[in-house]
Amino acid sequence: MSVEQKASIASFGGKLLKLSHKSETVGTEMNFNLYLPPQATKEGAKGIPVLVWLSGLTCTADNCSEKGFFQHRASEKGIAVLYPDTSPRGAKIEGEDESYDFGSGAGFYVDATAEPWSKNYKMYSYVTKELPSVVFKEFKQLDSSRVSISGHSMGGHGALSLFLKNPGMYKSVSAFAPIANPLNCPWGEKAFKGYFGEQDWKTKGAEHDSTELLKKWKGGDLDILIEIGTGDNFYKQKQLLPENFAEAAKSIGQEKGVNIRYQPDYDHSYFTMASFADDHVDHAAKHLSV
Amino acid sequence: MSVEQKASIASFGGKLLKLSHKSETVGTEMNFNLYLPPQATKEGAKGIPVLVWLSGLTCTADNCSEKGFFQHRASEKGIAVLYPDTSPRGAKIEGEDESYDFGSGAGFYVDATAEPWSKNYKMYSYVTKELPSVVFKEFKQLDSSRVSISGHSMGGHGALSLFLKNPGMYKSVSAFAPIANPLNCPWGEKAFKGYFGEQDWKTKGAEHDSTELLKKWKGGDLDILIEIGTGDNFYKQKQLLPENFAEAAKSIGQEKGVNIRYQPDYDHSYFTMASFADDHVDHAAKHLSV
Repeated sequence: MSVEQKASIASFGGKLLKLSHKSETVGTEMNFNLYLPPQATKEGAKGIPVLVWLSGLTCTADNCSEKGFFQHRASEKGIAVLYPDTSPRGAKIEGEDESYDFGSGAGFYVDATAEPWSKNYKMYSYVTKELPSVVFKEFKQLDSSRVSISGHSMGGHGALSLFLKNPGMYKSVSAFAPIANPLNCPWGEKAFKGYFGEQDWKTKGAEHDSTELLKKWKGGDLDILIEIGTGDNFYKQKQLLPENFAEAAKSIGQEKGVNIRYQPDYDHSYFTMASFADDHVDHAAKHLSV
Repeated sequence: MSVEQKASIASFGGKLLKLSHKSETVGTEMNFNLYLPPQATKEGAKGIPVLVWLSGLTCTADNCSEKGFFQHRASEKGIAVLYPDTSPRGAKIEGEDESYDFGSGAGFYVDATAEPWSKNYKMYSYVTKELPSVVFKEFKQLDSSRVSISGHSMGGHGALSLFLKNPGMYKSVSAFAPIANPLNCPWGEKAFKGYFGEQDWKTKGAEHDSTELLKKWKGGDLDILIEIGTGDNFYKQKQLLPENFAEAAKSIGQEKGVNIRYQPDYDHSYFTMASFADDHVDHAAKHLSV
């Protein structure tokens, strides 16, 4: 469970650490990044809250660290940002690297049950259990009781579903261009069929589908911030389906708890995340009491 | 001279345009990016000042557009940011693509006089004359009388030398990790020998060496902001030599006009630029009267 530090990069007054560890959950070496704001690098620092950022298809821990601009406001607010990878790497499963939207770089934040993926592709357990355990053990200045989550696209699905499946685990959630109803879009269908099998994909998928989870939400008043760019081709191609998520919110009387901002012309890229990163860090900060 | 728009990307309320044109100066198709802040995209917009950003070795117009975060404050201040490429592309000169620090991606913002480079490698004239002419003709809302310049590494050399060679052309200059005395470092010696020839590189190089130019400066009080990361390996390897630039400032009584900030631990990467981008846009804004 020991963490190896591969790099420490000065960023906005704090440090972006590039780290790796041998994951027992997924069975491979896993890279992740951790941004420590200046408040977390001082002698005797403690009680630093954490924002977990889940990236989208094809990404590693690096993309958002470099292009998402979250460090800007996280530095001001004194929030650490944890950037996990998006799948196991080098599990040596046949076909693992063939698709951009399945296998490596596309773990979908579920625990696979179908062969040959079930041994390694356990990103749900990895992100909710092992990685936090490793991080909070290694970085004592971080506050395990104050964690928020956000993400983009596949990572937006991850953020919403992890939040909704685990009431109380995260203080808040927000998302950019989330795959909000994977059961009903091509990306989600392919991933769920692959990771859960042709037999079970609908029932098991429903346990990870944010729209389905929201319909059953009993965790109290919500305050979810979602950014959708109207110029996002994947939104236009109905891979994201935020309208279904909004409808589910309405069905449980939580329409005021789901703030979907449709941003004119913005696309699916990190330019959109950078443009609204401050707002999403502020959203987390509010719920993390900073 | 017509400009082709390849993409328009929403960014911080404005538009990042990816553009290209056939350059008469360098003889190849040239890509460049232009960030239009929200103030510049409104009907009837006019008088928008411009910050020219010159990138470093191996970069294109894209690197700083994606990772530098100049758009963040430029959007707030209403400043356009012009990102030229760093060299001609596809000039089909033998050896052009062999080195990371010479040829393509490494034009050094000079007009080459030695064969076989002299026909195409005219980035000095391209950046100071042709590109502004093309841009101000195409984008009437920009104010050609209010232009500042900044850059990184090779582009920091470019920004400083273009400013010092052309009093009045730019309202202000700043730089990150500039190659401040190329005559006396390996990068500069290689580039100047290549572009000016073994015979002439010292005399011709002196006309583009910021430290040499500063010694002869007669343009009035300076206000130059320079960022140097003390963790920058190229600084440690004496490729940048900001101390020589500071010494030159002192020799002409302009030590107060050259503010070199040594930032602990910061490296040569875009993480450093992102961290201080706001400050450099503010520096330009002050001189651009916004």
